[in-house]
Amino acid sequence: MVTTWPKNFPGLGTGANDLADLIDKMSGGRIKVKVYGAKELVGALEIFDAVSRGTAEMGHGAAYYWKGKTRAAQFFAAVPFGLTAQEMNSWLYHGGGMELWEEVYAEFGLIPGAAGNTGVQMGGWFNREINGVEDLKGLKMRMPGLGGEVLKRAGGTPVLLPGGEIFTSLQSGAIDATEWVGPYNDLAFGLYKAAKYYYYPGWHEPGTTLECFINKEAFEKLPADLQVIVRNALRVANQDMLADFTAKNNEALQQLVNEHGVELRQFPDDVLKQIRALSDEVVAEEAAKDPMSQKVFESFVKFREQAIKWHAVSEQSYLNARTL
Amino acid sequence: MVTTWPKNFPGLGTGANDLADLIDKMSGGRIKVKVYGAKELVGALEIFDAVSRGTAEMGHGAAYYWKGKTRAAQFFAAVPFGLTAQEMNSWLYHGGGMELWEEVYAEFGLIPGAAGNTGVQMGGWFNREINGVEDLKGLKMRMPGLGGEVLKRAGGTPVLLPGGEIFTSLQSGAIDATEWVGPYNDLAFGLYKAAKYYYYPGWHEPGTTLECFINKEAFEKLPADLQVIVRNALRVANQDMLADFTAKNNEALQQLVNEHGVELRQFPDDVLKQIRALSDEVVAEEAAKDPMSQKVFESFVKFREQAIKWHAVSEQSYLNARTL
Repeated sequence: MVTTWPKNFPGLGTGANDLADLIDKMSGGRIKVKVYGAKELVGALEIFDAVSRGTAEMGHGAAYYWKGKTRAAQFFAAVPFGLTAQEMNSWLYHGGGMELWEEVYAEFGLIPGAAGNTGVQMGGWFNREINGVEDLKGLKMRMPGLGGEVLKRAGGTPVLLPGGEIFTSLQSGAIDATEWVGPYNDLAFGLYKAAKYYYYPGWHEPGTTLECFINKEAFEKLPADLQVIVRNALRVANQDMLADFTAKNNEALQQLVNEHGVELRQFPDDVLKQIRALSDEVVAEEAAKDPMSQKVFESFVKFREQAIKWHAVSEQSYLNARTL
Repeated sequence: MVTTWPKNFPGLGTGANDLADLIDKMSGGRIKVKVYGAKELVGALEIFDAVSRGTAEMGHGAAYYWKGKTRAAQFFAAVPFGLTAQEMNSWLYHGGGMELWEEVYAEFGLIPGAAGNTGVQMGGWFNREINGVEDLKGLKMRMPGLGGEVLKRAGGTPVLLPGGEIFTSLQSGAIDATEWVGPYNDLAFGLYKAAKYYYYPGWHEPGTTLECFINKEAFEKLPADLQVIVRNALRVANQDMLADFTAKNNEALQQLVNEHGVELRQFPDDVLKQIRALSDEVVAEEAAKDPMSQKVFESFVKFREQAIKWHAVSEQSYLNARTL
């Protein structure tokens, strides 16, 4: 298994290790998965091709990295103002999402699967207050993917930076702001030392799905029971990472606020409304660029529309009742 | 596997079937699980004893049914104003909850596991409007468990009724209101034909966890790989049922509103605040009745306190941003 994460990277890299270990144990040792960190066998962004070619048999990453190969992949990772983790799992397993994902990856000889979720991420670290959408104008912010496109449309300048360069860039003022993941990972990076405000919610990544894809030829050579074991090990990993992130974020948030005096700020309603409108534009335009993306988009958006209505009377209403 | 559900009952009974099937497939047929509906082998509420004695090897139910055997069990099913599904999984798998559950069931020779979740349920079907907490006075409502205790403290009369008698009791006026599960199951029962208002949120069951427990002696006779397979099949079932309920509730809610003209009502803020205060009293008093319940309660409440803070800036803030 080749991965896009540094070996043992908290949450993501350790999630890949846990998955490998689970496959070993459930198969009674009949499958041994060796996990390679980024650059150990191939570079972080070369894993898709490596598994497609058969250089490795499994890959662990996030689907938005493969936008350049197949635009539709982005819907299986994170969409600005898209689905939460619970909604994403429902769309994938019981709303037709998984079948579409399989269709998208089939031409590369890959079988995809969800293998983890971060939950709703944070909006990011800022050194200036965001009181209106005009405060995003000229803002140089580390923000990849569709979120970055939305920021650009709001007048900001999205910057691409690998994880390892974020802290120094923020501290030196080379960038004005950055998003990363959530309290657990952000605390580990020490981002609170380089920024004043910690904004929420992470509208750009509301339930980022991690993936594990498998070389189809290799998978099909497995006997039926091992195929079922591998597929379901992915499902266990998918749920377990979210549970792990939730528990660790709980604790890290307390530390950030109580020990490091981090100032939490919610984006103003007006900013969120305007960014939401821009997000919907950007995502719809992106989808319209090819028929497969459009097909996935239509399924995704229809599911989101229903989920918004159901969660308005269930999860959302309940979470609000608990903090009245 | 003996179950507390009628054979093939939607969502719950079918979830037990899926779990049995998954264990069969992952084990390559080395374990065949035969599923018995309620009353086929033993009665719905006799499954705990039956598996404890070894009459059956697995049981599928919900932990609040075993309150009479061990009060602490209630914390592993549903607690008024307790944890959502995502929080519950996090507490169980990464917050010490699972270890406590194992401790609680150990004296009965059982190994417990979460095997499904309904998500936030609905508040119930009412024929009178609830404008203030005084409207709950004298209300005869079908509501089991701790939720019923809270209703009693608010001046209402909780009534215990099995699923099959709810509809006629509501229609005849023998009860004034009822809760059941959520749109998917409630639609199947036709409850909309017997009540005027469909209230939300289900403060009394915010993420009901279903369980599968296993006879410890039988489990320990399995080889290591089959033990891992069985434990992880439960984890898959746990996630899958929530995904299934989310998708089916999405659709059923639309049908209820658009085709059957159901009137959705949110409990007024003031009612929710007062019920929350009563819930906290009832749950704390219940926990204080024995040391094991108190131990579980303290872990549960500490986790909830952190989760409320983290979800305020993640899931809750995001869900609200999406509907601004």
